[in-house]
Amino acid sequence: MTTEKSPVTVIGLGPMGTAIATALVEAGHPTTVWNRTAAKAEPLVAKGAVLAGSAADAVTQSPLVIVSLLDYDTSDAVLHPIASVLTGRTVVNLTADTPARSRQAADWAAEHGITYVDGAVMSPAFTIGTPDAVVLYSGPEDAYRSCADTLSALGGSHTFLGSDPGRAAAYDLALLDIFWTSMTGLTHAFALAEAEGIRAAELAPFALGIAALLPGSVADMAERLSTGRFRAGISSIRSNVATMDHIIHAAASRGMDAGPLGAVRSFAQEVIDAGGGDDDIARLARGYLTATANRSS
Amino acid sequence: MTTEKSPVTVIGLGPMGTAIATALVEAGHPTTVWNRTAAKAEPLVAKGAVLAGSAADAVTQSPLVIVSLLDYDTSDAVLHPIASVLTGRTVVNLTADTPARSRQAADWAAEHGITYVDGAVMSPAFTIGTPDAVVLYSGPEDAYRSCADTLSALGGSHTFLGSDPGRAAAYDLALLDIFWTSMTGLTHAFALAEAEGIRAAELAPFALGIAALLPGSVADMAERLSTGRFRAGISSIRSNVATMDHIIHAAASRGMDAGPLGAVRSFAQEVIDAGGGDDDIARLARGYLTATANRSS
Repeated sequence: MTTEKSPVTVIGLGPMGTAIATALVEAGHPTTVWNRTAAKAEPLVAKGAVLAGSAADAVTQSPLVIVSLLDYDTSDAVLHPIASVLTGRTVVNLTADTPARSRQAADWAAEHGITYVDGAVMSPAFTIGTPDAVVLYSGPEDAYRSCADTLSALGGSHTFLGSDPGRAAAYDLALLDIFWTSMTGLTHAFALAEAEGIRAAELAPFALGIAALLPGSVADMAERLSTGRFRAGISSIRSNVATMDHIIHAAASRGMDAGPLGAVRSFAQEVIDAGGGDDDIARLARGYLTATANRSS
Repeated sequence: MTTEKSPVTVIGLGPMGTAIATALVEAGHPTTVWNRTAAKAEPLVAKGAVLAGSAADAVTQSPLVIVSLLDYDTSDAVLHPIASVLTGRTVVNLTADTPARSRQAADWAAEHGITYVDGAVMSPAFTIGTPDAVVLYSGPEDAYRSCADTLSALGGSHTFLGSDPGRAAAYDLALLDIFWTSMTGLTHAFALAEAEGIRAAELAPFALGIAALLPGSVADMAERLSTGRFRAGISSIRSNVATMDHIIHAAASRGMDAGPLGAVRSFAQEVIDAGGGDDDIARLARGYLTATANRSS
């Protein structure tokens, strides 16, 4: 017995859009694709996808349109001119941008009778169609549920986060904030080590030991932020700042940029000056939010 | 059969110095301690340590002196006036500071006929005396080897890194650069999430997933830096910067400080402008070092 798969249109064939369309084709969905540069569709057409001559033509082929473009400037530029064709259809926009842009897009969609679900793909393109894919969604829950079966072709885990259309993008950015801050900390640390005559392969085993501490720190910090218990256990912000100063001075003595901690150092001082010096580093999160309140008042 | 343990003097009874002296007493070493505030020695004296009346008196009790003070300003202030008493003895200085300060201290020690080993305790004070302690050393190898048996009372792993007396401090700072950059990235991410209505306990499971990626990134980055292969695989610095911009804009829209990535963003642009835009983020490490070369030329 063959179950007929519902048709899907994919707009945007960068690495992520291509991976998504490929997974849909391979799962048996009649898949229509469109990309500004049509040549990118060739491998997909060879696999059975249909290349539409325009974004409007592509959209008319399916009740569900998955969008994966560079950013929301690009997404708006493609979708706004074809609003009337999108009316009555569902758009799942997996384009990465800010929560504010997702909310604006949802408002625009509502004005045009377009059902709009926002999503964020947390895993690299090569994970799409495998158990390692991680996709977050937010927006109208019934709309998400009605296309969840089709979206499952992308593989891995799919999590619905709530009705705020900016919520998936907010999770996405907070998680990318962790990832890219850690990654740039690594680059600065490897550079500082090399400036001191320590090769990357020599530092790596110790760096792995440090990296292994991060999950425990995540759990501890979440607990502190949930309970509001900021009193330092192992070390205080005041002593953390002394360490940051050693790092910044050591970098400067090698003529190096202070790196990501350069920006944190002065912010941490504000938290100390506000009376948080004896607290755990988790107190910085409260500092960022207090500063928010101050700046918006 | 009882093996007689060699006497040790510990200078400085902050949390780390106290943990070190406690481990030595518990391992059976005749232990003399000194601290500017004598009252801190009371629990140690109750366990069998001897409190000396002055740093000079403390030092005369043992051929090996372990120093654990706030920083090298403090260390120099304590040790320099008693240089003549230290002559002929071995100092293992576990005080945290910069590689340059360790090298200066080693030069000073050499001028006074003091054998000087520098060390860095990478694990918190509560790990001392347990299998979780991690201590790094650098300086004259024979001097380290001759006191390694006594130092083993501190528990855990002890690694000798080479003859450059600044090497242990350089490892220490590079590893702390990774740790504190990651930690401050976490604080900023949790704050950004909360500003968007996402509670810490909601973000935490996803944050743990991100933290679990870091060891793989360490290995990949070390490999890239060792081989010089920087061409991007999964994503390029150019696209990483687009993500950083989303994070920075999202923070700004909530009135928040840009956080640690604020400092990285402009540095990454320099790397892109220098032709590295299509490379992996590991290229930033090379960027920090190239900037070194430029600034020192």
